[in-house]
Amino acid sequence: MTTQVIVLNGGSSSGKSGILRCLQAVLQDPWLAAAVDALIEAMPASLQTSDAGIELAADGSVNVGTSFRELEAAWMEGVAAMARAGARVIVDDVFLGGATSQERWQKALDGLDVLWVGVRCEATVAAGREAARGDRVRGMAAAQAELVHRGVVYDLEVDTTHTESLDCARAVAAQVT
Amino acid sequence: MTTQVIVLNGGSSSGKSGILRCLQAVLQDPWLAAAVDALIEAMPASLQTSDAGIELAADGSVNVGTSFRELEAAWMEGVAAMARAGARVIVDDVFLGGATSQERWQKALDGLDVLWVGVRCEATVAAGREAARGDRVRGMAAAQAELVHRGVVYDLEVDTTHTESLDCARAVAAQVT
Amino acid sequence: MTTQVIVLNGGSSSGKSGILRCLQAVLQDPWLAAAVDALIEAMPASLQTSDAGIELAADGSVNVGTSFRELEAAWMEGVAAMARAGARVIVDDVFLGGATSQERWQKALDGLDVLWVGVRCEATVAAGREAARGDRVRGMAAAQAELVHRGVVYDLEVDTTHTESLDCARAVAAQVT
Amino acid sequence: MTTQVIVLNGGSSSGKSGILRCLQAVLQDPWLAAAVDALIEAMPASLQTSDAGIELAADGSVNVGTSFRELEAAWMEGVAAMARAGARVIVDDVFLGGATSQERWQKALDGLDVLWVGVRCEATVAAGREAARGDRVRGMAAAQAELVHRGVVYDLEVDTTHTESLDCARAVAAQVT
Repeated sequence: MTTQVIVLNGGSSSGKSGILRCLQAVLQDPWLAAAVDALIEAMPASLQTSDAGIELAADGSVNVGTSFRELEAAWMEGVAAMARAGARVIVDDVFLGGATSQERWQKALDGLDVLWVGVRCEATVAAGREAARGDRVRGMAAAQAELVHRGVVYDLEVDTTHTESLDCARAVAAQVT
Repeated sequence: MTTQVIVLNGGSSSGKSGILRCLQAVLQDPWLAAAVDALIEAMPASLQTSDAGIELAADGSVNVGTSFRELEAAWMEGVAAMARAGARVIVDDVFLGGATSQERWQKALDGLDVLWVGVRCEATVAAGREAARGDRVRGMAAAQAELVHRGVVYDLEVDTTHTESLDCARAVAAQVT
Repeated sequence: MTTQVIVLNGGSSSGKSGILRCLQAVLQDPWLAAAVDALIEAMPASLQTSDAGIELAADGSVNVGTSFRELEAAWMEGVAAMARAGARVIVDDVFLGGATSQERWQKALDGLDVLWVGVRCEATVAAGREAARGDRVRGMAAAQAELVHRGVVYDLEVDTTHTESLDCARAVAAQVT
Repeated sequence: MTTQVIVLNGGSSSGKSGILRCLQAVLQDPWLAAAVDALIEAMPASLQTSDAGIELAADGSVNVGTSFRELEAAWMEGVAAMARAGARVIVDDVFLGGATSQERWQKALDGLDVLWVGVRCEATVAAGREAARGDRVRGMAAAQAELVHRGVVYDLEVDTTHTESLDCARAVAAQVT
């Protein structure tokens, strides 16, 4: 079988998007990115900071409302349809619900050949990289480092704590069929 | 019937994305943006400036290669699937192929209730706004101003030459059912 | 005399940065931009949302703290030094303090040939353009539209309400000596 | 004496801006960033890709023209003036001319207490991080990795190849007086 979708799951500042860009560079076919950050960007501004949408608390925790969930569910169906239509897709997501988030993706990606990849990074290192990005909101990296992997089952795990994005990407690429 | 998709078509710097953001602000439901610029951003960097991908010529003309077309076709299917899954979607596209581009969207959006909107702007005004954005590539606004509307059929046309984005958005919103 | 500095003052979403980019395009010499937005970006992230730094209230009002004021004063001296060293500079600022802000600039730019330009835009139109940008924070455009011009003396005023950035830029350029 | 300016010099993708953001987070006073990338952004768009300005060749080499050099010289004077006016400043630059670039800064910063920091990163690792950023232009990281340090004298050198930005920043901060 041919891998149709690669799902990268990891906390904020764990290095998912760097791995994604490297995967696009090392894989021979053109792969399309489907990042939850781009989904948020595509939502109305009012949903980006509200109860109905997504709310970033001062301690770095993230709350997601009903409207967000509904658009997210439709987005997952859309990503699956892109893969079924022949695009090879790399998903870059943060499983705030752990195993529950994976189940949502499994349902949407039903019938597709998916490579599940866990992107880990030690909380303190991720927090340092969050500081290095200069973002105004802090704390998400530490808050999500363990949380997003709870109960999630992977084909492959990479750890960016001591390994470069490009090397992680090569390890993932080696599993792509 | 209920409008499920709004398609905004216009040349570069015609004001589509401003209208899109205003639509998201004035429409009661949360509408999701699906912009061709975000699609390009989601492609491998190598496709963003190559024969296989998208090439911006010095005179502002845009050439699109085979790999780009394939990913674009899959993206259209994905956007349609999002709408079928219940998300209300606003497409922000540049019909470089005029009527041919519209046919591709019509095929992908088959069975959905679509509002087709032409976003016009006089070439010289669009070129001025291109300068005001400070982009390094110049000439696309003028090159595309008429081209993208050739043979395209609309439910509604707005013109940003003398009308603000918000007012254009209100005119579009009035046609949304 | 030769104009060494152009100061553009106007509220948020009044169109200053568009005029600045157009000025850079139409003026023959290379002019350097010095925008307060870039100053804020250059500050520590902690100053970008704090009592000591800059605080954006929910109603669109902006509060500026002591640390911000100190760095801003040094920045003004730096901008003046760039002009004295031969760079032609376009300042893009928001005079939250009206005449008091202008006095600070006059002191810093002492001895330089400055063209003072007021950039006006009707509050409702500016608010609409703020919506079109899709920013998460709303209300600054309306809050600042009149405020920033109080007691300020200009060589020239332009109004983007019904005039394109490029045309405003040409009117300013005609006063540059 | 009190450190007034920290100069970070390193090749593209060596990790300077990450260290800069971490320095702003760990140092007690508010330090202002002065990055050559922001200078380029402040120049007219026409200078950003031209003979007179800055030109990025396909092999990753960078050519800098006369107009660029003149604005850069004025910018250095401006940065020095900000420091003399009391702002503590972190410069983030790429010494394309090696020792010659340092001499230009030494002249501009004359009389100020400067901490010179070399930011090193192995060429292959820097090239991998360049890929991870997804930039369209490739090759600068490798081309500049050694070049920018030729003949430059430092108070301190850090190496991001195996050390996190935050740890490098702490090493630099320990030398700030």
